[in-house]
Amino acid sequence: MLVKQKIKYIQTLGQKKFREEEGLFIAEGPKLVKELLEADAASVKEVYALQDWIDENKKSLNKTVIIAISEIELERISQLTTPNKVLAIVQQYETDKIVSAKDNITLVLDDVQDPGNLGTIIRIADWFGVRQIVCSNNSADMYNPKVVQSTMGSIARVKVFYTHLEEWLADQKNINIYAASLDGEDVTTINKIREGIIIIGNESKGISPSILSLAANKITIPRIGEAESLNAAVAAGIILSHILT
Amino acid sequence: MLVKQKIKYIQTLGQKKFREEEGLFIAEGPKLVKELLEADAASVKEVYALQDWIDENKKSLNKTVIIAISEIELERISQLTTPNKVLAIVQQYETDKIVSAKDNITLVLDDVQDPGNLGTIIRIADWFGVRQIVCSNNSADMYNPKVVQSTMGSIARVKVFYTHLEEWLADQKNINIYAASLDGEDVTTINKIREGIIIIGNESKGISPSILSLAANKITIPRIGEAESLNAAVAAGIILSHILT
Repeated sequence: MLVKQKIKYIQTLGQKKFREEEGLFIAEGPKLVKELLEADAASVKEVYALQDWIDENKKSLNKTVIIAISEIELERISQLTTPNKVLAIVQQYETDKIVSAKDNITLVLDDVQDPGNLGTIIRIADWFGVRQIVCSNNSADMYNPKVVQSTMGSIARVKVFYTHLEEWLADQKNINIYAASLDGEDVTTINKIREGIIIIGNESKGISPSILSLAANKITIPRIGEAESLNAAVAAGIILSHILT
Repeated sequence: MLVKQKIKYIQTLGQKKFREEEGLFIAEGPKLVKELLEADAASVKEVYALQDWIDENKKSLNKTVIIAISEIELERISQLTTPNKVLAIVQQYETDKIVSAKDNITLVLDDVQDPGNLGTIIRIADWFGVRQIVCSNNSADMYNPKVVQSTMGSIARVKVFYTHLEEWLADQKNINIYAASLDGEDVTTINKIREGIIIIGNESKGISPSILSLAANKITIPRIGEAESLNAAVAAGIILSHILT
């Protein structure tokens, strides 16, 4: 049984302010919760689940706090339109020490605003083995429930940092910076890279001029048809697939 | 001024059943409505807009029925969380005669369910010059407001058909069929094509076995990291970028 106070507490984690204060976030659904438990069980603080889910998953839950709840209770704490068996409260990942771009592929997001796009980009990074994403401070919050859901578990495997982009980029000496733009070099013909920074811009405004000026290389996805642009996550996926594989 | 009856009528177009009966759909926001007017002004039946939008766009509207409305009226007819200046009622496109895949690139969607994914795929097709998409009857409805919005106007330029996929595929003689799967040939190394059918599967189940058995070629996006899969629209974008450009 869930007391009213607990329900309210979980609901407040839908808001960024409370998530930051508590250092926690919410993840829902059997698939996502299973991925998070497999990636880092210690970070999963509490699991609220229907009895049938608990029965099925007992073995993987020996160190986790589990609370059996009813469907009605799940509906009250869930952020989903269709609640799905289980909700976990998870500790936010450590991202104090921002990484260096040296010897790495780093994806940089300049004000990507749509939570679905950010989550999808984290999933794409995980697919292509990109271990770190550096976001401008105005980008969508990685712990927004919609972001978390659309990462499909990749949020536990990719480090996401928020910083003042211009300053951070200026500090990355001798590292090639590639900016996704509409007037660059054809991404399908450039050489593969093992180290570098790839910048994806805002959904409607693209990359801001001050950030763009820091990129020595502009890259473009060739267009055959008439669409004015591509979705930011789709562009990220296409660029990584050409530049890394 | 909008009478109550008209408000109700526009609201019902949010539902597939009524859209089909009326042969109409809704498109919202300055960017999307402008794209639809440019692509095919005759199909735009009525435009409901704030006065400032009308003043700015008078020139391109000489043959369209325009109704000036207030912000409060727009809120009542809009399907968006944040209504955006203009809503158009548009005639559904003619898709009676399903095309042949001969001499064409055809994208086939086997039960793509998420409206955002379908809209994004239509936009990707438009970017890469793919003129036709054939969907299984169970796929998301192309006139769902979320689909329309995420096409960013490409809905006016790409033909989308719904049919019994197995039967249609069986009729396409001597045309190469490529299925996106997790165990196929590396898409980054296969030859470019100018004619062919490319199948993308459902978000969680992939391509159904009966459809997959009709594809002579399986193609895969190489994975370097650990994500279990890629988003359907992202996969479509990556595959088209490698196979067409």
